[in-house]
Amino acid sequence: MVKKQKTFRPKARVPRGFRDRLGDELGAEREMLARISVVYEAHGFDPLETPAFEYTDALGKFLPDVDRPNAGVFSLQDDDQQWISLRYDLTAPLARFVAENYDGLPKPFRRYQVGPVWRNEKPGPGRFRQFTQCDADTVGAPAPYADAEMCVLFAEVIEAAGVSKSDFAIRVSNRKIVDGLFEKLGLANLEGDQTRLNVMRSMDKFDRLGEAGVRLLLGPGRKDESGDFTEGVKLSDSNIDAVISFLTSTVAGDGPATLGNLSAILSETESGKSGIDELIEISRQIPDDYKNSVAIDCSIIRGLEYYTGPVFEADLTFTATDEKGRPVRLGSVGGGGRYDGLVERFKGVKVPSVGISVGVSRLLAALALRNPEQASPSGPIVVLALEKDQMAAYQKMAAELRAGGLRAEVYLGGSNFAKQLKYADKRAAPVAIIQGEDERAKGEVTIKDLVLGAELSKKIEDNTQWREDQPAQFSAKREDLIDAVKKTLARHL
Amino acid sequence: MVKKQKTFRPKARVPRGFRDRLGDELGAEREMLARISVVYEAHGFDPLETPAFEYTDALGKFLPDVDRPNAGVFSLQDDDQQWISLRYDLTAPLARFVAENYDGLPKPFRRYQVGPVWRNEKPGPGRFRQFTQCDADTVGAPAPYADAEMCVLFAEVIEAAGVSKSDFAIRVSNRKIVDGLFEKLGLANLEGDQTRLNVMRSMDKFDRLGEAGVRLLLGPGRKDESGDFTEGVKLSDSNIDAVISFLTSTVAGDGPATLGNLSAILSETESGKSGIDELIEISRQIPDDYKNSVAIDCSIIRGLEYYTGPVFEADLTFTATDEKGRPVRLGSVGGGGRYDGLVERFKGVKVPSVGISVGVSRLLAALALRNPEQASPSGPIVVLALEKDQMAAYQKMAAELRAGGLRAEVYLGGSNFAKQLKYADKRAAPVAIIQGEDERAKGEVTIKDLVLGAELSKKIEDNTQWREDQPAQFSAKREDLIDAVKKTLARHL
Repeated sequence: MVKKQKTFRPKARVPRGFRDRLGDELGAEREMLARISVVYEAHGFDPLETPAFEYTDALGKFLPDVDRPNAGVFSLQDDDQQWISLRYDLTAPLARFVAENYDGLPKPFRRYQVGPVWRNEKPGPGRFRQFTQCDADTVGAPAPYADAEMCVLFAEVIEAAGVSKSDFAIRVSNRKIVDGLFEKLGLANLEGDQTRLNVMRSMDKFDRLGEAGVRLLLGPGRKDESGDFTEGVKLSDSNIDAVISFLTSTVAGDGPATLGNLSAILSETESGKSGIDELIEISRQIPDDYKNSVAIDCSIIRGLEYYTGPVFEADLTFTATDEKGRPVRLGSVGGGGRYDGLVERFKGVKVPSVGISVGVSRLLAALALRNPEQASPSGPIVVLALEKDQMAAYQKMAAELRAGGLRAEVYLGGSNFAKQLKYADKRAAPVAIIQGEDERAKGEVTIKDLVLGAELSKKIEDNTQWREDQPAQFSAKREDLIDAVKKTLARHL
Repeated sequence: MVKKQKTFRPKARVPRGFRDRLGDELGAEREMLARISVVYEAHGFDPLETPAFEYTDALGKFLPDVDRPNAGVFSLQDDDQQWISLRYDLTAPLARFVAENYDGLPKPFRRYQVGPVWRNEKPGPGRFRQFTQCDADTVGAPAPYADAEMCVLFAEVIEAAGVSKSDFAIRVSNRKIVDGLFEKLGLANLEGDQTRLNVMRSMDKFDRLGEAGVRLLLGPGRKDESGDFTEGVKLSDSNIDAVISFLTSTVAGDGPATLGNLSAILSETESGKSGIDELIEISRQIPDDYKNSVAIDCSIIRGLEYYTGPVFEADLTFTATDEKGRPVRLGSVGGGGRYDGLVERFKGVKVPSVGISVGVSRLLAALALRNPEQASPSGPIVVLALEKDQMAAYQKMAAELRAGGLRAEVYLGGSNFAKQLKYADKRAAPVAIIQGEDERAKGEVTIKDLVLGAELSKKIEDNTQWREDQPAQFSAKREDLIDAVKKTLARHL
């Protein structure tokens, strides 16, 4: 008995944390990116494309340590022994690009970039290791005018993506007012200090736990519903009061009142005063038609360490429900801010910069929740291939349909009639074109209206009259093919 | 004396073999990809996006060995110990995708994909380690009809990219006729054999060395101009005759004659006969308006091992010159072919497939050589910022210009007037808008025509009259801003 040798067959699977995307989803993203790009370009931003890789040392914060070269980023060693990493955002490559080409660039340098970024993180539901970013940055312009422009640009971009003005807000805060608060708490100049981090973490829970909960977290500690105890930060009572005043200083829809409250708390701190002045000036620069879209909001923290001044967040404010009718929190669909130190890492001089990044996937997901009934773009018209020796004639029909501005293809998989119709169905073809021997002899084609066919099969009884008027399948002269198809498509507009 | 501590400053440089691209070049590529995508969609292909990474074992041919995991591809080990690699083309990911989702896909499955691919190879002039591919494939359709469709699609795509029909050719051959030739030479079933490889290498030099040179290479060996000796393949005289007959069987512009010649050489071989039959059928299926664009050409080899049938190459046929007026060989701008074994690697069953890949960078470079005088798209209109307390008013002007369909921005870098004009110049701004205190008092703006300004500074003497008629700088009422700018732009259309 001869033993059959086993061939090695790799398992076909997309790598963990990555995904394939096709058809409609991809089309929707592409359209959104095109609309956003138009706004960026209108504002004088030029496109830039940097490669997927950067030298690892140029990426900065995420610099892998030798033992764990893949912490946060995907890294590998080039054949000249240098470590290279896939970019995890579009800002670090911009800083590198500006530093590398500084003398030749117009200053300010205004660029936008659209492209994938990679994160070497634990994947989770809806959290992928590759996703699209869509950024605009002004490099070499100090606060506050460039920051005000960014707020307006952000609003215009979210509008262009399909959200009406009443359904989103650009929330603005300033890293300097948080610094001012820490100055007041006696925690200035302690970047990365654990107490500071715990205070910020507690502040971030204000939305969920309210004042009482945050007071416990900042003080003695808090026991949650399950009985778990979170150690408190043990701030003094006056410091806890200061944090709570800070958190409650936002007056919705009233920037001047918010800034007045902030002043009362922070005006004796240097950072706080400077931050408030910048926010006042930014508010002043917002044109009337965007005054209601841009709001001062002290609760905006933005985690990224590299921000040095104003920070922005784009939030959706409409309510949406999922497919089961449950309300869905939409939240942030992008962020940004001022970073005056990123180019400095390379050049040794501060290059004041500010930018925004649109969360394309989140925006798409939110819009899809809102307009679930949106019709999906329809598939190509399928010309069935019944006689092998007539393939050229079928291709001619498809070519004529395309010349008439329609998507069209000939079925290329075999001659089984039912299989061909099933294919047309699976492709969401609106129309199938049939020409067998009989039709050909008469110089005719059969037009099959697949949209109507699907509707008829659903409600077969109650529309006999309409059915007679609108046959789901009819003959047309070969020379009238385009007209007949266009009339059929027009039924469903 | 206190020692100053030295801060670590990474050097800002793009990784070796990679490049940044901006502005016009990127815009041109984007436009070309959009035009190609329109053709693919019209033919019924749907977009697909696969992630940058694939499991290394799924990539096949380029599977890195353990000692050199980066041979040809960029690979790294995921935290679950599995090797993942960046895709080196768009075909291997397609095969994986189809195998993974086989049951749910319409068959044939027609997709197109546009995106970057990565090669871990030695970079060279004009050879980068990341570049864009733009493919269309039909998976699950046997020869010859899907192959004929691909040839026509290929021609339509090159046309859509901006090359007229007289300036390119889709050359078609068949891997099976090369197999037929090897059968005739007694080298059948020796895939990867050194003699076979040497014969193919010699055949590939026919263009450059002619018949005499190739005869030497196939026989005793050849000494080149420099005196270097290349060992010969030492085929028998009759085998050398067969190879030469094969290479000279192409009759330019006459497919039937070419196929006749081929038949005379290969008809007794099984592969050769089958390959010729497929080429005959493909030729028959090409519609009249593309008969002159698609040509049988036996010299097309296409290196990729995975082709199993017809192979295609798109060649530019016009002559171009470089910036020094020297003629440039343009050559191939894309290729493709039939691969019936790629999905089989995963599934164990043959899935007949055929596709094309457009060399977008090459096509762009060739078109740029041809139309070097093409005007670059112009930069944004720049509104100068002379008075800080008028920034909101300047932004209002820019917003009005954008609402009028123009690109416009306010200068955000500082108040130096000369610097602002230099910026406008560097951005290729067609127009600068100036409103200082005086203009503002009069309710006016100054429009500076920078295109005209540049022209005037070149030929300052000989056009006094025209200069008086077309002032490079003039005043307009503030409320006439848009009209005045549009009239200025219209001067240069």
